[in-house]
Amino acid sequence: MSPPIDHDELTGSGDPFTAMRDYLRRFAAERDWEQFHSPKNLAMALAVEASELLEHFQWLTEEQSHNLPPEKLSAVAEEIADVQLYLVRLADRLGVDIAKAVTAKTQKNETRYPPDKVRGSARKHSDY
Amino acid sequence: MSPPIDHDELTGSGDPFTAMRDYLRRFAAERDWEQFHSPKNLAMALAVEASELLEHFQWLTEEQSHNLPPEKLSAVAEEIADVQLYLVRLADRLGVDIAKAVTAKTQKNETRYPPDKVRGSARKHSDY
Amino acid sequence: MSPPIDHDELTGSGDPFTAMRDYLRRFAAERDWEQFHSPKNLAMALAVEASELLEHFQWLTEEQSHNLPPEKLSAVAEEIADVQLYLVRLADRLGVDIAKAVTAKTQKNETRYPPDKVRGSARKHSDY
Amino acid sequence: MSPPIDHDELTGSGDPFTAMRDYLRRFAAERDWEQFHSPKNLAMALAVEASELLEHFQWLTEEQSHNLPPEKLSAVAEEIADVQLYLVRLADRLGVDIAKAVTAKTQKNETRYPPDKVRGSARKHSDY
Repeated sequence: MSPPIDHDELTGSGDPFTAMRDYLRRFAAERDWEQFHSPKNLAMALAVEASELLEHFQWLTEEQSHNLPPEKLSAVAEEIADVQLYLVRLADRLGVDIAKAVTAKTQKNETRYPPDKVRGSARKHSDY
Repeated sequence: MSPPIDHDELTGSGDPFTAMRDYLRRFAAERDWEQFHSPKNLAMALAVEASELLEHFQWLTEEQSHNLPPEKLSAVAEEIADVQLYLVRLADRLGVDIAKAVTAKTQKNETRYPPDKVRGSARKHSDY
Repeated sequence: MSPPIDHDELTGSGDPFTAMRDYLRRFAAERDWEQFHSPKNLAMALAVEASELLEHFQWLTEEQSHNLPPEKLSAVAEEIADVQLYLVRLADRLGVDIAKAVTAKTQKNETRYPPDKVRGSARKHSDY
Repeated sequence: MSPPIDHDELTGSGDPFTAMRDYLRRFAAERDWEQFHSPKNLAMALAVEASELLEHFQWLTEEQSHNLPPEKLSAVAEEIADVQLYLVRLADRLGVDIAKAVTAKTQKNETRYPPDKVRGSARKHSDY
């Protein structure tokens, strides 16, 4: 049984995407779960986790969502971890390099949303 | 206008979670978009992006999902980047440290899914 | 306290969309829940329910999904009911007539997907 | 090629769930699309449509979501129709009777949420 991922591995001098990827490979291999990890299934699991995260916010006002009580914030943090881990696992199974994909997407968004054209407008806003 | 995030910032000696977080703070500030970025709204945006990712797989067999044609794989990589970026932005607005949350969740999963108890079983499988 | 909706109301000579709509109006009014039922919140609740439905299928093969064990099928039926009820409630709060919207959409799809052009092709398939 | 579903079929003296079900059976058969319609795939398609509906609301305030401009309301109505149609198709492929499932769920909710216990409380609110 492999040790869980270490916080230093994620924030230390190495690459956390690689650390998470390698951890999840071992985790699946030790449980013989690769057979379930088709990209299709992992994309489903990711969407399900993202909705579990959403569920915590569904009856809150936007204002309330800024001030979660501690036990709710813990539950939300756990769902955030689930989304992160499935995202890394899905990317690995597809051969996608998340860091490269993020770099490319931020370049695209800089071009697509010039600050002086979209300032303060939700209508122009469709990415972060 | 800030430069887009650099690939070296994400894989170099620094912490990519911090690099993405700082980039997204600048990106939102320059566009006066903080007003839209309540945790509630960001959780919705994250779920929507996760579903756009899912959409690419919806009529494929599991087998086909392992072998995406190049243009589809590019589109999928872009959705993966979107999910990653919204996740970082949401965590930042909530004050959640993703690396810590991931560490804690992997510890929990090691306990919850001992390899010899769950090996090869989808029924026991509800996390990666 | 209002009685639950009756099966005859849904399949009898009346219009089930109207029966469900009226039931849900009473249900919310009796609990003073109208305040939570903005279209935005209901759209979130609907997406969350649709994901709970999806969760039941996430590690199954397509073949297995055709043959759910009885207790799983019951749980799935309950999620189907939840999606149906939130959909009716959301449509009501927006003033949308579901029957009219369905009629219009099926007309559009007949034009968009001529049988001889799309037969047997998943690529051409993006609606039912 | 079958005619699209008629509005009178949905609101007339017959059962609209049956009318939609039969329409969708013909629609799929004429296009040889039954092969794609496993419950697993349909559950994915339903979740994707529910998210497309959600997307329309993602940067709106709750207040704004009550007052959609006409062209946005039309787009939303079309997504509502898509959710309805996939829900009927999924239920049919599983052998679930939506009207019965709705009846059972409303009975359960009457018991679970007694008005005097949950009045005005979002915390107690997890169903419509």
